[in-house]
Amino acid sequence: MPTHLGSNQYGKAENRVVRIYRDTDRHEIRDLNVSTSLRGDFDEAHTTGDQTKILPTDTQKNTAFAYAKEHGVTSPEDYALALGTHFLDAAPAATAAQIRVEEYAWDRITVDGREHDHSFVRGGTETRTCVVTVEGRGADQRLWVLGGLQDLVVLKSTGSEFKGFLKDGYTTLPEADDRVLATSLTARWRYDLDTIGDVEGFDWDGTYGSVRSILLAAFARTHSRALQETLFVMGDEVLGAHPEVAEIRFSAPNKHHFLYDLSPFGVENNGEVFIAADRPYGLIEATVSRDDASDPGSAWTAVPGFI
Amino acid sequence: MPTHLGSNQYGKAENRVVRIYRDTDRHEIRDLNVSTSLRGDFDEAHTTGDQTKILPTDTQKNTAFAYAKEHGVTSPEDYALALGTHFLDAAPAATAAQIRVEEYAWDRITVDGREHDHSFVRGGTETRTCVVTVEGRGADQRLWVLGGLQDLVVLKSTGSEFKGFLKDGYTTLPEADDRVLATSLTARWRYDLDTIGDVEGFDWDGTYGSVRSILLAAFARTHSRALQETLFVMGDEVLGAHPEVAEIRFSAPNKHHFLYDLSPFGVENNGEVFIAADRPYGLIEATVSRDDASDPGSAWTAVPGFI
Amino acid sequence: MPTHLGSNQYGKAENRVVRIYRDTDRHEIRDLNVSTSLRGDFDEAHTTGDQTKILPTDTQKNTAFAYAKEHGVTSPEDYALALGTHFLDAAPAATAAQIRVEEYAWDRITVDGREHDHSFVRGGTETRTCVVTVEGRGADQRLWVLGGLQDLVVLKSTGSEFKGFLKDGYTTLPEADDRVLATSLTARWRYDLDTIGDVEGFDWDGTYGSVRSILLAAFARTHSRALQETLFVMGDEVLGAHPEVAEIRFSAPNKHHFLYDLSPFGVENNGEVFIAADRPYGLIEATVSRDDASDPGSAWTAVPGFI
Amino acid sequence: MPTHLGSNQYGKAENRVVRIYRDTDRHEIRDLNVSTSLRGDFDEAHTTGDQTKILPTDTQKNTAFAYAKEHGVTSPEDYALALGTHFLDAAPAATAAQIRVEEYAWDRITVDGREHDHSFVRGGTETRTCVVTVEGRGADQRLWVLGGLQDLVVLKSTGSEFKGFLKDGYTTLPEADDRVLATSLTARWRYDLDTIGDVEGFDWDGTYGSVRSILLAAFARTHSRALQETLFVMGDEVLGAHPEVAEIRFSAPNKHHFLYDLSPFGVENNGEVFIAADRPYGLIEATVSRDDASDPGSAWTAVPGFI
Repeated sequence: MPTHLGSNQYGKAENRVVRIYRDTDRHEIRDLNVSTSLRGDFDEAHTTGDQTKILPTDTQKNTAFAYAKEHGVTSPEDYALALGTHFLDAAPAATAAQIRVEEYAWDRITVDGREHDHSFVRGGTETRTCVVTVEGRGADQRLWVLGGLQDLVVLKSTGSEFKGFLKDGYTTLPEADDRVLATSLTARWRYDLDTIGDVEGFDWDGTYGSVRSILLAAFARTHSRALQETLFVMGDEVLGAHPEVAEIRFSAPNKHHFLYDLSPFGVENNGEVFIAADRPYGLIEATVSRDDASDPGSAWTAVPGFI
Repeated sequence: MPTHLGSNQYGKAENRVVRIYRDTDRHEIRDLNVSTSLRGDFDEAHTTGDQTKILPTDTQKNTAFAYAKEHGVTSPEDYALALGTHFLDAAPAATAAQIRVEEYAWDRITVDGREHDHSFVRGGTETRTCVVTVEGRGADQRLWVLGGLQDLVVLKSTGSEFKGFLKDGYTTLPEADDRVLATSLTARWRYDLDTIGDVEGFDWDGTYGSVRSILLAAFARTHSRALQETLFVMGDEVLGAHPEVAEIRFSAPNKHHFLYDLSPFGVENNGEVFIAADRPYGLIEATVSRDDASDPGSAWTAVPGFI
Repeated sequence: MPTHLGSNQYGKAENRVVRIYRDTDRHEIRDLNVSTSLRGDFDEAHTTGDQTKILPTDTQKNTAFAYAKEHGVTSPEDYALALGTHFLDAAPAATAAQIRVEEYAWDRITVDGREHDHSFVRGGTETRTCVVTVEGRGADQRLWVLGGLQDLVVLKSTGSEFKGFLKDGYTTLPEADDRVLATSLTARWRYDLDTIGDVEGFDWDGTYGSVRSILLAAFARTHSRALQETLFVMGDEVLGAHPEVAEIRFSAPNKHHFLYDLSPFGVENNGEVFIAADRPYGLIEATVSRDDASDPGSAWTAVPGFI
Repeated sequence: MPTHLGSNQYGKAENRVVRIYRDTDRHEIRDLNVSTSLRGDFDEAHTTGDQTKILPTDTQKNTAFAYAKEHGVTSPEDYALALGTHFLDAAPAATAAQIRVEEYAWDRITVDGREHDHSFVRGGTETRTCVVTVEGRGADQRLWVLGGLQDLVVLKSTGSEFKGFLKDGYTTLPEADDRVLATSLTARWRYDLDTIGDVEGFDWDGTYGSVRSILLAAFARTHSRALQETLFVMGDEVLGAHPEVAEIRFSAPNKHHFLYDLSPFGVENNGEVFIAADRPYGLIEATVSRDDASDPGSAWTAVPGFI
């Protein structure tokens, strides 16, 4: 029958790589969830079962762990770039490799007012993410790097309204002058590697921290006429502060907090008691882009959850 | 600053719509999780906070429930087509609407050997899915329909091997002549609406059931030299049996079952005792396409988890 | 300081033991999640760090897998009894062992109208459970066996009411003559081993299947004036049919399905369109016991989620 | 048939009560998940369907929200005591009420170096918990309060060993001089209300913060010869510092971090690269109790996950 293999990729997902730096008494920890995948000319593996060109996912796993020592993990981005580049060498039939990393934050435990050398407590609700895509070899090799975070849960208890919206026969929502605004933010931003220049010297950790701080502060400061507006301001400020960021994409569930009706009990409720709802939720997705942003190429290919 | 709003969409996610048909004593149930989203000219909502063109997600929710009665739910696909088309009428600034539906299966409870009229038990582990995209208006309106399922958990206890693969310095995996093969399958297939002709008369439920059966039987029958090969056969058979399916995409975690080493205890283990592993897992994603498949257009835009 | 170690236990949780029977072409599969724990005189391990009496959880894991072959898995209960008895021999300081097992159901895939020999699809949403407690040694050894299931999701679309309840100043709920009743049932029943006699010959699988069928049929048949009443009937019928069951305990979330108000849109809703809510949910827990039930002893000790 | 209703309770689980204090520009937030339940003489509801004595779970929900305003939420414990006491008044057939509360932490967002008045980011991974049980009425009324936390994820990268343990024919674990120790701690401690005296004036928030700090510091400081020993030290130090705590119970999964074998690739791994495993996991549960601890009474009844 006239069918063929279309787009495809394969790899090892969710390798839980924990790298401890213990060269001095003061240990450092990088706690990662690493997923690797390869794309390329793998037709025979599918159509005839011939695995000659397939670098097994088990080998990819071994490599992910070995590289945590051989190359090291100075940052998720730096580690992922090394790993992705390696796989194009290791698998000649591959045309591209994509490495996704999640990083979990650890804070030092405080003992008698001082940070402990080797004891840690998991920090924050959010997870840092990066996606590195490596395409081609030699002089034609192209790199893309997405930084990001997910599950950054934020809330403002006032300074948010929603009104002036389109109404039709199915509209029952009253206009709101003052509501709770909350979301569990996922953001990914694309680095412009031409602006960065040498990726080896770039301060990935510092930039991540800066973007996170800008996002939080912009969320806090913005009087919100809609979650859409808040997201746009957040993105705009990141681009304003970081010329090496070409665009930023948000996926933000509107975590509804409904005012609980206490009037049947003769109790006033002036924005003081809310029920936090689970489902359904609004879902706002938006991109803020620099006007002269470079071509995204394959940066977003197969990245889940983005339009 | 020279920035602009890029691609964006918004809507209400995970409306848990349960439609009961009770016109006769023998009730029917359609149990849905419905997510709606709109795309279009919504710049002002983001850049100036002006909500004039925004049909609120709350209104989308109301509509999703009202349509379960006004239009009815003869199938997820039929319902989603009606809902998506409606939203383009309701929101003049929208250029496209995408409706995603998950459906949970219910079986009738058996009492004294007979199926009960109005009592049900949740069936199966898998969830039926569909994604409908409606673009444009009037004569230029385009429709796309993806059928699908997720979390169809299957296992074969023999008839699977993995050998002849590429080896490098990080390879430790031995070749396997006989292994357990298991996956939790996600599949989405694109319907060719030109082949179908009138979508109103099409048997969406019957086709879903047929595709599901073909996938299961192909998984069972295929001697597997890799999960990739099994997926290709599964897709190929669906396309062979269903001319109205243009392509099918799979995302299949290789749920590893490792032979537990009992030799330290002097116990033989000839493929009898396995440990089912959680993470990491292989992840195989592949598309099988008809050679003369129609243009996918916007069918896959923003559909999560597919390359 | 005058403190001491109180009640304690330790073990290995969630061993994913998969046992394949492949003695003939028609394979059988038992897919288990096994948790083992020991109680006893383990004070030094806590207070001085001395591990002399501690049978490591790693050894418990090895044993759980080895026993799947050495003893076999004819049923979760039989396997757990063997494992629990073994641990009292292996760990002299232990006074009791508790083995918890979850079993996942697999159905055979149908190919050309026939059940396949070695290909399976995960069946049902519910999980079968058992908890075996073994206390003491030799002539004084006591055994307890709890059978059970969890996440048996059932719904009836009529035949349920809720009225005549107590009202106070915080009551707004209207009385309901006809509502959807749905739950995700957890049930555990205690076997009376004196009634059973020889546990080796007992048909654990058959009894489990029978209890499950009785629960479903009673749920379906009972006109419900409250979930409490439905649970009582379900328990009463199990005890009536199975003299070897001494008592049965239920934990049943009332999965609310609220009628969606379509009146603002001029649409009637006579029990046809519901929103399935996530949280909060009613939670009903109840025990039905035989009047002459034997002493439960340690059967329920440390069993989660039961009063 | 001679059966009867045994132990039972009912209530509304997981009310997501969010209380905002906005009396000044600097808002405060208490973000709770509240579950209420009643026990007592509710036989008819089960056996005859008569709901006369049943205070509906819907009314319990309304009350939980109303009390967040009427009584206020100065702490989870104080709020739960008020709510539990109320229910014994509202439901004459109830003999006891149990209120469980989870509280999610929010930190203020920092803008330009200052804490924002009304914008927050979710803090920490752990959840604060409390369980209040109220039994009886008038002079005979008894109260019990459990404080607690769950999912406090901690790790130490050295200072942990495990050796000298019991060995048998199923033991393969080598002794370890230096390993990673990590857990996701659940702890509950019972307050001695006689020691506290007037519960209205007690500093529940301050005590919670102190216990949490002591647990972290003890985890960090203790050279661990087993997770059991670490837990005992943690409990002992809490009891030493807080005379109003009668006992503390721990449930602590040993989150295994296995050294990844890099020797096949000629790469050294001196405690630097680990794989974080999901399942199985060790599970250590222990109680540390004051020698002269008061009678626990009903404090632990129906509290999940504790022996």
